[in-house]
Amino acid sequence: MDERSALAMLSTALPGAGDDAAVVGDLAITTDMLHERSDFPAGTTRETAGWRAVGASLSDLAAMGADATCAVAVYAAPAFEEAELSAFVRGASEVCERVDAEYVGGDLDEHTEFTTATTAVGHVEDPIYRDGAAPGDAVCVTGELGRTAAGLRKFAADDAEAGNDLFRFTPRVAAGRALRGHTSAMMDSSDGLARSLHQLAEASDCGFEIEWDRLPVHPAVDAVADDEADRRECAAHVGEDFELVFTTPDPAAAVAAVEATGTDATVIGEATESGVVADGDALPDRGYTHGEH
Amino acid sequence: MDERSALAMLSTALPGAGDDAAVVGDLAITTDMLHERSDFPAGTTRETAGWRAVGASLSDLAAMGADATCAVAVYAAPAFEEAELSAFVRGASEVCERVDAEYVGGDLDEHTEFTTATTAVGHVEDPIYRDGAAPGDAVCVTGELGRTAAGLRKFAADDAEAGNDLFRFTPRVAAGRALRGHTSAMMDSSDGLARSLHQLAEASDCGFEIEWDRLPVHPAVDAVADDEADRRECAAHVGEDFELVFTTPDPAAAVAAVEATGTDATVIGEATESGVVADGDALPDRGYTHGEH
Repeated sequence: MDERSALAMLSTALPGAGDDAAVVGDLAITTDMLHERSDFPAGTTRETAGWRAVGASLSDLAAMGADATCAVAVYAAPAFEEAELSAFVRGASEVCERVDAEYVGGDLDEHTEFTTATTAVGHVEDPIYRDGAAPGDAVCVTGELGRTAAGLRKFAADDAEAGNDLFRFTPRVAAGRALRGHTSAMMDSSDGLARSLHQLAEASDCGFEIEWDRLPVHPAVDAVADDEADRRECAAHVGEDFELVFTTPDPAAAVAAVEATGTDATVIGEATESGVVADGDALPDRGYTHGEH
Repeated sequence: MDERSALAMLSTALPGAGDDAAVVGDLAITTDMLHERSDFPAGTTRETAGWRAVGASLSDLAAMGADATCAVAVYAAPAFEEAELSAFVRGASEVCERVDAEYVGGDLDEHTEFTTATTAVGHVEDPIYRDGAAPGDAVCVTGELGRTAAGLRKFAADDAEAGNDLFRFTPRVAAGRALRGHTSAMMDSSDGLARSLHQLAEASDCGFEIEWDRLPVHPAVDAVADDEADRRECAAHVGEDFELVFTTPDPAAAVAAVEATGTDATVIGEATESGVVADGDALPDRGYTHGEH
């Protein structure tokens, strides 16, 4: 059974699963595991790893419209180096501070490869699910796309400082909270814009038509992309930008609500009856395979 | 840095860490990682693994006097076999049902070795910490000790059915809730009674004197133990029984409160000024090393 089939099986077996985070009463909860080989390019500091791993879970809370209360992590490594462990805790604590959450530690484990499992918990009254988009809604993204793609290029070019800087993102918790009452469907872009659109389309039984020129592409992408095709690959397929992808019947109000939190939001197209297309061409349901994962 | 030093460093860096679970507002949260080689003997079913891994996190909530709201798990394995994954989910769901919590799934991850990272969250108003024991308090345990030790012997003797049965324990959430207002300090016995007593002694700046004859030893231990020394090893050092170890100035009331939930509680000795002794002899601060861990 491949991972997608297994996830589908789980979301059938467990009614709470299948969205960015599970909702139980007024709590939203989400968990993720990341590995050194597949998720952290050579040059990633443990501070960035802690930031990014915890940030990925906080982003799942944001995608539900939840606030972020706290996060924990298991830190598993072949050895516990004080400087590395302190750096991990510093990064995890800093990303929590960015979204008014508290990092409260977790567990240590001996393991052959540096691995971390993070969990974030928040409160939510009216969760925003993936299944409410309707034809005619505008589809929007927060922030800019391609930041992680540019970071990966920087790591590959041995510019670890720039790579680490691009890899430390701010989870869109404030934007997600501001969008409550303004969105019909939402998720985060952790698997890339293209896969997010396909997942929203499947959950909402609709389609999407976007325009390449409307995508807000991170300025760092322009410095690393070979050509326009490569620029689009970075913006739509590489993923792990942890921006919010959402639909809304009232884009002016939704964009204004996000901008009031200090984050940009951009209309990139609209929901249709079926199919996911960009400038009239089918947009493949394809992400990016990191490392050996 | 060894794991104990690293944990000490973390509890200094993170005020919320260092007890069985972290407390943030009215939430208690705890996370653990378990591995096939070190934590699950050959013969452990995936149902038992799911039960036990999630149960270990639920036990940490019990040790704070918290209720149990929900749990999540990352299931990491070389391949996703539908039968194994379903069994894991069944075990995780069943142990949650035992304590009125909801298992809401989590994440899947490809990994060389079967590994699971579990997180449990509950609500707590007046958390019970490890640091409140005072000389003269009675020290007590819930249930019976040595259940896991007996299970390990069963697995080693190729009696996987008995091993799996002994490995599926009920987390003491109801007992922990009932003990609020009756205890001065509490933790669970995941590292064994001896280490739990040393950890309570260190946190509370006191000592303990227990009597071997008072320990409630699981009947399965008598069937597998070679002699009295081995029986004591099983009851006090092997650990992972996930019972509650607590102190109380009023043992009659505390024991009655636990028994009202359908679980036994037994006074095994009392808190003293210093030192951890059993029948007058020093009780070593020693657990048990499982497998290659």
